[in-house]
Amino acid sequence: MTKSRRDVLAGMMALGASSATAHSSGHPQRGTVERWGVHELVFDGPADGNPFNEVTLAAVFTRAGHEITVPGFYDGEGVYRIRFSPPEIGSWSWRTTSNRSVLSGRRGAFECVAPRAGNRGPVRVVPAGFHFAYADGTPYRQIGTTSYSWALQSDQRCAETLRTLASAPFNKMRMCVFPNVASVATQPFARVGPGPRDWDPARPDPAYFRRFEQRILGLAALGVEADIILFHPYDKVRGYSDINGADAERYLRYVAARWGAMRNVWWSMANEYDLIKNKSTEDWDRLFQVLQAADPHDRLRSIHQINTYYDVRKPWITHASVQNGSAVKDDGRAIIHRLFALKPVIFDEVCYEGNSTARWGNLTGEQMVERFWWGTIAGTYVGHSETLDAGRQPDTSWLGQGGTLRGSSPPRLAFLRRILEQAPRPGIDPLQPFWDYHMGGKEGEYYLTYFGEARPTAWPVVVPGRGLPAADYRLDVIDTWNMTITPAAGAFHLTPRDPYDLHAPERPSISLPGKPYLAVRLTRI
Amino acid sequence: MTKSRRDVLAGMMALGASSATAHSSGHPQRGTVERWGVHELVFDGPADGNPFNEVTLAAVFTRAGHEITVPGFYDGEGVYRIRFSPPEIGSWSWRTTSNRSVLSGRRGAFECVAPRAGNRGPVRVVPAGFHFAYADGTPYRQIGTTSYSWALQSDQRCAETLRTLASAPFNKMRMCVFPNVASVATQPFARVGPGPRDWDPARPDPAYFRRFEQRILGLAALGVEADIILFHPYDKVRGYSDINGADAERYLRYVAARWGAMRNVWWSMANEYDLIKNKSTEDWDRLFQVLQAADPHDRLRSIHQINTYYDVRKPWITHASVQNGSAVKDDGRAIIHRLFALKPVIFDEVCYEGNSTARWGNLTGEQMVERFWWGTIAGTYVGHSETLDAGRQPDTSWLGQGGTLRGSSPPRLAFLRRILEQAPRPGIDPLQPFWDYHMGGKEGEYYLTYFGEARPTAWPVVVPGRGLPAADYRLDVIDTWNMTITPAAGAFHLTPRDPYDLHAPERPSISLPGKPYLAVRLTRI
Repeated sequence: MTKSRRDVLAGMMALGASSATAHSSGHPQRGTVERWGVHELVFDGPADGNPFNEVTLAAVFTRAGHEITVPGFYDGEGVYRIRFSPPEIGSWSWRTTSNRSVLSGRRGAFECVAPRAGNRGPVRVVPAGFHFAYADGTPYRQIGTTSYSWALQSDQRCAETLRTLASAPFNKMRMCVFPNVASVATQPFARVGPGPRDWDPARPDPAYFRRFEQRILGLAALGVEADIILFHPYDKVRGYSDINGADAERYLRYVAARWGAMRNVWWSMANEYDLIKNKSTEDWDRLFQVLQAADPHDRLRSIHQINTYYDVRKPWITHASVQNGSAVKDDGRAIIHRLFALKPVIFDEVCYEGNSTARWGNLTGEQMVERFWWGTIAGTYVGHSETLDAGRQPDTSWLGQGGTLRGSSPPRLAFLRRILEQAPRPGIDPLQPFWDYHMGGKEGEYYLTYFGEARPTAWPVVVPGRGLPAADYRLDVIDTWNMTITPAAGAFHLTPRDPYDLHAPERPSISLPGKPYLAVRLTRI
Repeated sequence: MTKSRRDVLAGMMALGASSATAHSSGHPQRGTVERWGVHELVFDGPADGNPFNEVTLAAVFTRAGHEITVPGFYDGEGVYRIRFSPPEIGSWSWRTTSNRSVLSGRRGAFECVAPRAGNRGPVRVVPAGFHFAYADGTPYRQIGTTSYSWALQSDQRCAETLRTLASAPFNKMRMCVFPNVASVATQPFARVGPGPRDWDPARPDPAYFRRFEQRILGLAALGVEADIILFHPYDKVRGYSDINGADAERYLRYVAARWGAMRNVWWSMANEYDLIKNKSTEDWDRLFQVLQAADPHDRLRSIHQINTYYDVRKPWITHASVQNGSAVKDDGRAIIHRLFALKPVIFDEVCYEGNSTARWGNLTGEQMVERFWWGTIAGTYVGHSETLDAGRQPDTSWLGQGGTLRGSSPPRLAFLRRILEQAPRPGIDPLQPFWDYHMGGKEGEYYLTYFGEARPTAWPVVVPGRGLPAADYRLDVIDTWNMTITPAAGAFHLTPRDPYDLHAPERPSISLPGKPYLAVRLTRI
């Protein structure tokens, strides 16, 4: 086993990994892997010709009649791998198929055991709803960030980014496979000449993808989802995102086989897809279908736009990933995204905290946090990034290269995350959204309202509650910027006021401190 | 020719109609019809059995190699009709097909001539956009209203409604085929017993549909589009909208053959479709496909919801028809509908002007008009209705039965309609909608901004205009409630201020009268 092979395995141990090298003797090693970990099979095979194109390899994993076919991939130097993340505990067996006899008919078995603490499985969409949960049922409350090319920076800079994330509130990172700003790793495909476009799309460079997967695993160790952006329109010089047709499909199959078993992987087909001029909507549709078919682990899939919203009701889209600078300046606008999507909505780009001269990169920390709160009470999720000193060339901001965070929003987003962790399962939904209550939660159980920049000095205790019985509630005044939660003494007895609302006749109103960025929370006792 | 036949034809003369009775001799009368009028073929045929189910009839109309197959329908008493609205001027010939020899192989011809003044053809969606135009190219600026069961009231009441519409601003009427409030016409299907559900869905009553089409023609004579609501959830007693499967498909084919040739017909598959519990999304999808296949005239098609937005990107949907009480309280919310729909958006139900105790029926006139204006600058369209005295039983309000209008919004909507008629073709689009300019129009040509309830005393003359050259503009201050347009003296010379905006350094600001419901319009000179 080469050095690089050991590296991969060491990194994957964080996911609860095991490996087996099946020899042609037919007596494979047996291993043990935890549920939702990675079981990797490693084989020696042909290195001649173009293995990426010419060699097919897959394994059928079987447990109690449940069969999953998992494609393998070529890792260079005559090494082939198949990575599988078992969804169920128990005894799994496997058998390979290949168009090369040396790789075909290999077989083996392993035990899948209960996951260790901290392994909650992959994030899934809660069926027929607007929220996410880990496979073990724990709600996943998305607080995202974006650092497009952090993973392509030096090992030292990447380590710095991971240290930053270790104490940051973010549980999802959006990141590009191909570079968009100055980077250390810039060659995902084999070089065939001196020019920027002299690369062979039929030959992924395993070292590039191996390096990238170490970053994915670094995020996994921190409990951060890796939202992997597969195409983007920014690199006009090298033009990696211009690959189309069979080249694009091979690339998608490669990353699906290589990374799909890692439980923190999400697929973002593209950033600002509608700026990539050589792909039509039909191309994107086909690429999604190729990716879906190539990914037996069925990771989350979406796509990010600049102007033209992709049709997120298409069956291969698991959630909306939206860029819109004004959609979360108001819960009402965010809510409409849910009405159209009928799926979870993440506002992955809502402008950034920073000091850029470009209008998309100069939010104050207060504005950044406000967007998260409007999105929250609308039952949607929001993403952060930072463009402080974005005017410097090369772009060394968090958005471009990662590193450290200097903005004022992250501590407040950590505060929001703690609030969300106490909110109902699977998540906050907007309450009677056609009637502008500006309130999320769950009727009769939990109410969260937010006032944005307004500076209220009082709030009438009225909440939607059609047909609900009277009940007692706890009330908290939340200062979302100063990060304080002030409980009101005693209970509020909420009773029906009219066909639509509950009110508190004995305590009809509460006083508020007349500051911006306040919220009020009611929780049934 | 029976009395009823003459009635139909007389009404259709308003559309530029002609008819031909083709005899078995093979020597048909020749007629003349204007473009987008109705050419009706009338045949005697079998009256035994159930002709609605058992007799097929269609005609192929041909002109210069262009063939259109138009289904016929049974009109009772042994009479069959085929109605065709020719899309092109010239000589058309036709030939029938039927499973009955007496109706098969009949042939004839007619001349299609230029339309008379006032006949601008059917309303179509302007390709790849968010607006409508008549077939002759004239923009159609929708100012809709709803009166669900007006067409089912007494002849006297219907005449009153038409008189009201003759001096009202509305150019579209939403109306149900099946009754939803107390009505005179209540039996669309043949009675088979005394109970409210004793009717035969396989036997439409031609008299009911003939009566209804007189109402459609009455609207056509006024230049009002008839947005025909095919199903609704309100009649639990008779349950007409519960028909499904073959019964629903027969009904759709019947109305498509009967009414589809009338150029002011639009199809609204249902009102609050998601309250009709016996039809799934798959059922609605199939019904749309049946309707589309049955309607060679390809009239506009949409569907109206209460909670769950139907997927309006489906190919059989021509435009969004939305119910949302808060979506046009802000242009930003309305704009998001365009982003998702990528088709014209009509907010057909945004609450009503009225004095109902129900929260959906007690807007002030000011609030009703405000919703139209927010929708307008968002590049969308809005619908009106009135629920004054809606609490009375039976519901005699405009919303239920038509009659007269007593609210204060219609004159202001007439004023808006005149403003729209001077706006760019094909319509107003929101300008740089992610950046909250609250401005619609066309960059560099026409700007319309609106202030809603705010009472501004000044407005800085700044408009979006990325990369535009300097130019002179006329400026008008519009009081949308008091219906005044006050031109500012002289021109405003707008020049680039920064990468995004134009401003007027010599006249940086204008004063405004500090009243609510103001708008400002700039038009390039």
